[in-house]
Amino acid sequence: MSLRSLGVELHCRCIKTESKRIGRHIESVELIPANSHCEDTEIIATLKKTGQEVCLDPNAPWVKKVINRIMANKKR
Amino acid sequence: MSLRSLGVELHCRCIKTESKRIGRHIESVELIPANSHCEDTEIIATLKKTGQEVCLDPNAPWVKKVINRIMANKKR
Repeated sequence: MSLRSLGVELHCRCIKTESKRIGRHIESVELIPANSHCEDTEIIATLKKTGQEVCLDPNAPWVKKVINRIMANKKR
Repeated sequence: MSLRSLGVELHCRCIKTESKRIGRHIESVELIPANSHCEDTEIIATLKKTGQEVCLDPNAPWVKKVINRIMANKKR
């Protein structure tokens, strides 16, 4: 059961996004499509080692590249 | 703190992938890049309503389309 399906998160999760290119530190990425509670796609990266969660800008070219790299199954 | 950063998940998480086109039922998607414990990118979708987690095939054209749609911030 996800939090949102329980009706807990009825707003955007990201306030600000990371501007530094942290692609190599990313362990996994969560994509949340625009929905009735948040009008923009949100991207939340979990970092290696610390497990820290960081919001990324879906419109930043380096972020699109990171996603494309993951989808292309390229090792880092 | 993520599970993997705690050293809990030292293997692939997906055993089989969903073949049906379930794009419209997706609430969020987790992308896990290939790493030392799993040689392929893994995509785990969380479904609306049920919150069920389903693995998707990163090589399936419909899955790539779903990810591209989310990145393009297109509402469904």
